[in-house]
Order: sequence, then C-alpha cells, then structure tokens
Amino acid sequence: MNPFSDHPAGTIAALGEQKLLARIRRWLGSAAPASPAGMGDDCAVLPPRRARGRAAPPAALVTVDPVIYGEHFDAAVPPRAVGRKLLRRNLSDIAAMGGRPRAAVLALALDPRTRIDWLEAFYRGLAADARAFGVPLVGGDLATHRGGLVATLTLLGETTAPEGRALTRRGARVGDWIAVTGRLGGSLASGRHHSFTPRLDEGRWLARRPEAVALMDLSDGLAKDVHALTPAGARPLLFGELIPRHARVDLRGALTDGEDYELLLALRATPAQAQKLLAAWRRAFPRLPLTVIGQFAPAAASPSAHGALDLSALHGFEHFQ
Amino acid sequence: MNPFSDHPAGTIAALGEQKLLARIRRWLGSAAPASPAGMGDDCAVLPPRRARGRAAPPAALVTVDPVIYGEHFDAAVPPRAVGRKLLRRNLSDIAAMGGRPRAAVLALALDPRTRIDWLEAFYRGLAADARAFGVPLVGGDLATHRGGLVATLTLLGETTAPEGRALTRRGARVGDWIAVTGRLGGSLASGRHHSFTPRLDEGRWLARRPEAVALMDLSDGLAKDVHALTPAGARPLLFGELIPRHARVDLRGALTDGEDYELLLALRATPAQAQKLLAAWRRAFPRLPLTVIGQFAPAAASPSAHGALDLSALHGFEHFQ
Repeated sequence: MNPFSDHPAGTIAALGEQKLLARIRRWLGSAAPASPAGMGDDCAVLPPRRARGRAAPPAALVTVDPVIYGEHFDAAVPPRAVGRKLLRRNLSDIAAMGGRPRAAVLALALDPRTRIDWLEAFYRGLAADARAFGVPLVGGDLATHRGGLVATLTLLGETTAPEGRALTRRGARVGDWIAVTGRLGGSLASGRHHSFTPRLDEGRWLARRPEAVALMDLSDGLAKDVHALTPAGARPLLFGELIPRHARVDLRGALTDGEDYELLLALRATPAQAQKLLAAWRRAFPRLPLTVIGQFAPAAASPSAHGALDLSALHGFEHFQ
Repeated sequence: MNPFSDHPAGTIAALGEQKLLARIRRWLGSAAPASPAGMGDDCAVLPPRRARGRAAPPAALVTVDPVIYGEHFDAAVPPRAVGRKLLRRNLSDIAAMGGRPRAAVLALALDPRTRIDWLEAFYRGLAADARAFGVPLVGGDLATHRGGLVATLTLLGETTAPEGRALTRRGARVGDWIAVTGRLGGSLASGRHHSFTPRLDEGRWLARRPEAVALMDLSDGLAKDVHALTPAGARPLLFGELIPRHARVDLRGALTDGEDYELLLALRATPAQAQKLLAAWRRAFPRLPLTVIGQFAPAAASPSAHGALDLSALHGFEHFQ
C-alpha cells in the first residue's frame, strides 16, 4: 500500500491532530498503557522496582522529540542552533515532570548529500549543550533518508522529588490556580525558539512543593496547551492582563505563538499559601517570574462573566495542516 | 547553511560510513562516553545505582532504530509488516546484549498526505508485536514531515544475567571461537527481513554462560559485521563450509546479504567445553542451530594458509552510498 494519497479525504491532514491521537490510542489498545505510565504526558514514567523496606528509588522518565528539515528549521538556521534546539526541546519535557536528565540517544536520518560541515556544526552544538546540561550521548543510529533530514533524540531522565513523585499533566481540579514561568510569545520571530533555557531547576523545585499539583511545558501556545492541564468538568479562566508577555508581543501572540518552553502549572493553595509560595520562588529564582494567570472553574462558568479570556476563538500550533 | 550540497565532495556520501562514525566521535568528544556505556554497541548500557550491600539491580539498556520510507520499506511492503519490523529490529539489539525489553517510545515524522488506513495497519502491526513481546508503548511524538515518512522507535530494556552483566561486542580475544545462531542469507529476497524472530531467549541464555564473551546481532552481513566483534590485533578466520545458509542462498549471499538478525558470538572454551555448551544449547533450543564457524587468530595469520575465507573482497551493506 502506498502510504501517501493525493486525495485529501482519508489522509491525516483531513483527520487533524486531536482525532488522529484518539485513533492511535484505539489502534494501540492494550499495547499502550494510560498516562503517566504511558502516552499523553510530557514524558512517560516508568515506575522503579522498589526494594522492600527502602526509600523508593527514582522513577525513570522517557521522552522523544525530533527536529526535521523544512519543519523545525531551514537553511537560515545555523546548524549549531539546530543541535542545541533538539536537546533543549527534550530537556524541557523532563523539566515539565520535575525530573533530572540522565542520558540521550540520537537517531539521524540523512540524505547522502548532507554536507559534512553542516553535520559537524550540528554535532558540536549538540555536544556543547550535552556537556552544559550534564547529559551524555550514549548511543544512536545513522540511516540513509534520500531527500530528508530528521534528527530524533530520545532523552532518559529520572524523578527527583521524594517518593519518586513525577508532576504530570493530570493533577488539577476546580479551584486550583493556573500559573506560568517567564514570559510568553514571539519565540519564533525573535529566534528564542532555538536558544531558550529549559526550566529544569524550576521544574525540580516545583516537584518538591506540595502546592504544585500539575505541570507541563508550553510548546504549542498557552491557548491550546492549557486544555491539556484542564481536568474533566473544568474550564480554565485566564485573565489577559495577568499574562506575562515578552517585549513587542501582543496578547494574541502570547496565547498562540507557540514554542515558549515555559512551564505551566496548577497550584492548590489558599491565597495566603500562594503568596508564600511565590515569595519562596522569588528567593529561589530572582530573575524568572512565576505568575498566577488564572484559575480552573467549573465547566459551566462563563469566561466573559468573570472578565476572563474567551479561548474558543484562539488556537495554538496545529500539526498536519 | 543549506544542509545539502549537490557537489559530492564535502558530503557524507563522499566520506563513507566508517569515516563518518569516526568524525562523529571526534565532534562529540567528552559528550559521548565510550562503549558499552556509550556509542559503538548494539545498545547503550546505563549502569544501575547500586544499593549498598545488595545484589546489583539490572543495568538499563537503550537502543534506537528507524524505518524510513524509500529505504527500509516501500509501497510493496504491507504496513503491518513495517510496524512489526520496526519493533523487531530494536528487539534484536536488546537480544544482542542478553537483555530483556521493558518499554518503547515511538517518534513518527509524517507527511500530511499519509493515508489513515496505512497508518492504522502500521500501528496495529506494531501493537500486536508489542503485546506478543511484552513491550508496552509508553510514549511518543507526532511531527509533520512533508514528503517523508520516518518512524523511529527507542527501546528500553534491562540486563538479565547475574551482576547486571551485559554481553557487549568487546570481549573477544585471539583463540576464541566464532559462532552464529540460525542460518544466514537471503533475508531481503525472501521477505524474512520483516518477519524474523529476534533472538531474545537465546541472547538471555548466552548472557548466563561464562563461555560467551562477546555478542552482537547481524544486520549488515556477516562479512562486514564480524569486524565489530574482532579485537585489536586479531583477524577472524571463517570457514565457508561451516557457515549455515538458508535454502537457495550461496556463500556470498550468506556473507553479504544483510538483515539476518541472527546472533554472532565469541566463545572462550576448550573443544570439550564447547561441545558441552553446544549440547546444552540443543536441549534449550532444539529448533535453532548454534554453529561454530571460525576462530579469532592473530592479525598476522593468513586466511588462505588456514583454508579460511578472504573477507577483504567481501562487503556488507554500506550506508550513504
């Protein structure tokens, strides 16, 4: 069977990303366990083999992300930046579980016409970051791919919080505050999308705070990604004037530009507890803001009645379009 | 910088696979530890965190392999077989360390024109094998790749032998016997390359035998792959009449066809010990031969003087040509 069709009907473009993901879950059935042990979170969590009578060892974390020529980078992006971005995208997923990276493997699918000097700069950028973040590159694969260049990095990590706690996307409930690190928007226009700092220290700090109950990183834009943190029966109320934006970015950009690689979290705290946590954050990370931008309300709540944003008209990055 | 060049000089095709691998090691420098903790073996081995006074827990194994449209499969290959082959290629790498698979993550780079029914059959083939081999698919990534289809699977496993022993490619020395499981050749012509059985039970059995000192799986053809098992200062003497071949395969085919996914190993044993091991093998695996096909000799040895094959004229599969 030819994998491709020139008739749009029956292709994944016609199906769209969300429906495709639902189909894939159905096709895999029992071969794919549910999150957090399986699909649907920033990393998969492999529970440790617990030694009787001892503190739980860390759980293993696994994540995979590619960079693809023509999609994530083009000839205008320096190859060093491509290598750095590949590692940092994956580090951001480990950060989003409150984890620590451990080792990486790289699969490269390369056209035989790939320039040696391009590849050297790519590897040197990757190696510099691998050393800076303490992530050994322990293995990989090279394969021929005529007409393409796909670099796929799998990153292994481990949890750092007591009892092997991993902060997943599924911990929020109605009443929890919604907060975000840093500032949003303009990542692609500014070039930040290949020089951002994955929030590893911040994620580990949050994983040790009982008030933090759910965590993810922002890759497709806040307006789309916040739904992944929203529990069933709830609606996120986000307040536009609270959302921290980069310079020269409007509110729509902060909501939909994508590739922010900041952390989005749910906090379960009284206002006084939240103030205390924010004060502790400022002492730990004086240069990076943590900002409460909204709250999870019952699904029946009307955003406009609360002065919150109507997210239904806003979309983040959609794959396969 | 454009990653591709239309002038062959300066491209990876001009450099060739072996030189490219040597360059990559240099570019990565200290970011890439040496085998078996790093590149150069069938899997990377991540040593366990040892609890004081207790038996060593298993070491973690990691391997990654893709299947790429136009390279590893085409429109003539049923998509179910593509999904199966992707998992089995990686399982064969775990088998080649004497390990047990634990979990897999899948990164798919897909053209938006990818047919839903192709993808469904691919996933169903993958899922059926994942269940059969007890490997949960715990995560993954979907990305757009206009004009291409690359499926990259990363497989995590663990060692099974006492003291976390992993059988690597680097354990042989002069005097060791060279042995192979099954029969070789004709894998692509017969279609075996997408329905082979990874030798997981056999690899685990070998990892518990002290006579087995080095192990790998055969993917690019015996004539090429045997060099990866050959220690410095040694030369493999292979005897053509001993090499087990599939029906309708000549000696050259058995040496160079590739994609056999059988195990190649080094045995350190007296002839009597080797006979005993082969007898134990026949009891454990009555339907799969284990055959001694040669011996590692000093590098100065002349193959022809020993009646052994001249491997210098034979090449296995070369990437980027």
